[in-house]
Amino acid sequence: MKPSYNVFAGHSVERLAALSDGIFAVAMTLLVLDLHAPAREAIHSEQGLWLALGALAPQMLAYLMSFLTLAIFWNGQQAQLNLFERSDRHLTWIHIAFLLAVSMMPFSTKLLAEFIDYRAALIFYWANIFLLGVTLYGSWRYAICAGILQKDVPPGIDKAVRGRIVVAQSLYALGALLCLFNNYWSIAFIVLVQLNYAIAPTFRPRGARKDREAG
Amino acid sequence: MKPSYNVFAGHSVERLAALSDGIFAVAMTLLVLDLHAPAREAIHSEQGLWLALGALAPQMLAYLMSFLTLAIFWNGQQAQLNLFERSDRHLTWIHIAFLLAVSMMPFSTKLLAEFIDYRAALIFYWANIFLLGVTLYGSWRYAICAGILQKDVPPGIDKAVRGRIVVAQSLYALGALLCLFNNYWSIAFIVLVQLNYAIAPTFRPRGARKDREAG
Amino acid sequence: MKPSYNVFAGHSVERLAALSDGIFAVAMTLLVLDLHAPAREAIHSEQGLWLALGALAPQMLAYLMSFLTLAIFWNGQQAQLNLFERSDRHLTWIHIAFLLAVSMMPFSTKLLAEFIDYRAALIFYWANIFLLGVTLYGSWRYAICAGILQKDVPPGIDKAVRGRIVVAQSLYALGALLCLFNNYWSIAFIVLVQLNYAIAPTFRPRGARKDREAG
Amino acid sequence: MKPSYNVFAGHSVERLAALSDGIFAVAMTLLVLDLHAPAREAIHSEQGLWLALGALAPQMLAYLMSFLTLAIFWNGQQAQLNLFERSDRHLTWIHIAFLLAVSMMPFSTKLLAEFIDYRAALIFYWANIFLLGVTLYGSWRYAICAGILQKDVPPGIDKAVRGRIVVAQSLYALGALLCLFNNYWSIAFIVLVQLNYAIAPTFRPRGARKDREAG
Repeated sequence: MKPSYNVFAGHSVERLAALSDGIFAVAMTLLVLDLHAPAREAIHSEQGLWLALGALAPQMLAYLMSFLTLAIFWNGQQAQLNLFERSDRHLTWIHIAFLLAVSMMPFSTKLLAEFIDYRAALIFYWANIFLLGVTLYGSWRYAICAGILQKDVPPGIDKAVRGRIVVAQSLYALGALLCLFNNYWSIAFIVLVQLNYAIAPTFRPRGARKDREAG
Repeated sequence: MKPSYNVFAGHSVERLAALSDGIFAVAMTLLVLDLHAPAREAIHSEQGLWLALGALAPQMLAYLMSFLTLAIFWNGQQAQLNLFERSDRHLTWIHIAFLLAVSMMPFSTKLLAEFIDYRAALIFYWANIFLLGVTLYGSWRYAICAGILQKDVPPGIDKAVRGRIVVAQSLYALGALLCLFNNYWSIAFIVLVQLNYAIAPTFRPRGARKDREAG
Repeated sequence: MKPSYNVFAGHSVERLAALSDGIFAVAMTLLVLDLHAPAREAIHSEQGLWLALGALAPQMLAYLMSFLTLAIFWNGQQAQLNLFERSDRHLTWIHIAFLLAVSMMPFSTKLLAEFIDYRAALIFYWANIFLLGVTLYGSWRYAICAGILQKDVPPGIDKAVRGRIVVAQSLYALGALLCLFNNYWSIAFIVLVQLNYAIAPTFRPRGARKDREAG
Repeated sequence: MKPSYNVFAGHSVERLAALSDGIFAVAMTLLVLDLHAPAREAIHSEQGLWLALGALAPQMLAYLMSFLTLAIFWNGQQAQLNLFERSDRHLTWIHIAFLLAVSMMPFSTKLLAEFIDYRAALIFYWANIFLLGVTLYGSWRYAICAGILQKDVPPGIDKAVRGRIVVAQSLYALGALLCLFNNYWSIAFIVLVQLNYAIAPTFRPRGARKDREAG
């Protein structure tokens, strides 16, 4: 009975994209719920409030890092989904595992913000990023094997996508290893890697623009 | 006056799908709000944090089970909506009852996580799954009777969808009955049934792929 | 400068519909956050948990009523948006006022659940429903005056939509007035009105189906 | 490796719009979580509840102002996205910075509601509005430079959009400066500016309507 059901289940990329965008949107906005405004009773002057806001800096850092992480993986998954001609049941479930990792992010962030100097918190956080990478890699590999890509995708893309995920995950793992010395080194390294992925391409906008015009 | 209003109300499957995706996305992400990071004051060492994270295991289990449940029913409803040519007022309201059950899930999960060894919590949780199944079955039956399906849906689909929901609900009910012995048996059984629905088809990807190519 | 900006701002019905669906989805799912699972420490037996769940009944009732309310107004606004050919700046802002009322619903619900026997809570709740009705009526009237409706909308629709909103709001106001006697009478009356809007049409599905086939 | 990846990453305006609508929807609905219903124990009469609701006025004001702010910027960004033919990686990241500012709004609002008479809270809130303006301006400027606009956009639009953002931000900055005298003056001024943007155009609906008919 299952095969005939599975033939029509989970074939819509659009619906999968809509669920993904929803989960990303909620997760990215829930992050901010970790930021607790200072308690009114503890504040007695303007300066006191500025100091209390300054004391939120570690939480703010964890929040920013997680927003960056989710934004990077949102880019990654939407780039993939745009290249898929359709989905199927297997791809849908791999993608749902990816979304599970997305929905874990607010918890991992809260844990890291609370225990920013504990190695356990950093490793837990890294494990979440690793799960995001593994499931994204898995969905790509499956899509290639199952011939789900659109016809007009240039042949070099497979290698580019895989290389990108592997390099990024190696850098994240290296960053996580730095917690053997100090958690703040780890966080700084990971944020730098992320900023590189977000900002670096702007150093050659002219060339990229030409690519796009030609493309 | 009502008939002429109802002729144009609730005819859009796309909007219903968008509302569904939104409610699923929020419900799936809210689940994680139940996971409370350990209190800073109670933790004095790396080992203490690892132990505290380990103590979250039952909550984590309830969270994973609920994410799986919602993912399975998201698949079920989107497979159905994809087959409908349009919606109508009645179908919309049946679907809204289904979404009510979806929005209850975070509460049922919180209850089960808190009272994981209480039969009452498990029965409440099962009742939620049952409500999901009944409303999904109802929306399908109504769509068949009202002739809402797209023209090119193969004739065997009706039996496949109904069979699938009935078999799954029977297994969930059997799982819930196991709580007469022990709640953990119940949960393990339900999770196994869910994993079967999510993963099992991957054991015959080649055949399924051929189906799809042929389809 | 403004006119030339306003010519192109806020013309997309699709985007307005997407924002609406998102806000409805979040509001409908946030309602459930008001339902607090009983505290673990206060429960010592299966029976105790069943009693504690029973004690949640008033909150559960407020939750169900609000879910129904939001579902009814979701239907109303999507029926309207489906009939509009485009949006414009004014319509967008009227609709945003409507969404403000939607986003207030979780607060009104929490207030009513907490103070279910206080007239002030019931009047606040009714004021929220009234605001939903006024803004929905306003957006319809504006759309008619500005000639925004699609060309193929039958002429009787205007009267039907206006009649429907006026009748419903009169019934809600009547329900709210019943709080002069007793809040529970008010709530029961309002829920009955809502169930009538949601369920009643199913008493003549055959005729409605013919309408649709003919339409 | 990056260039070939970046050619296909982040090109979909539709997906970016979907993520934006989701984040706006969640942020606009989360605002209301700041409104805490009065505690049951503190209320002993109908009058007491009315007074307690009245005491929520400052929080309610901050909530309304933030809803207005987000609605204004939602209009701004959707007007822009509608004019873009496609996105690219750089535009996507500028827009994500904009969404970061959107997701900060519930926190800024909570801070202002709690410390409504503290200059620090008002400046923090203004900084959030400023970040919204800067990123929106940046995404527009980038889109112009990169030639991303649709072909049929009239040439005067660039000046109109830029002028609008600059004028609005100047007024917000002026409003923020008023906190040197009194926070309430600041808030009143900012709300008036916002209401002007939301409501003012309705004073000439006839002309605007003609524009649209001609357009």
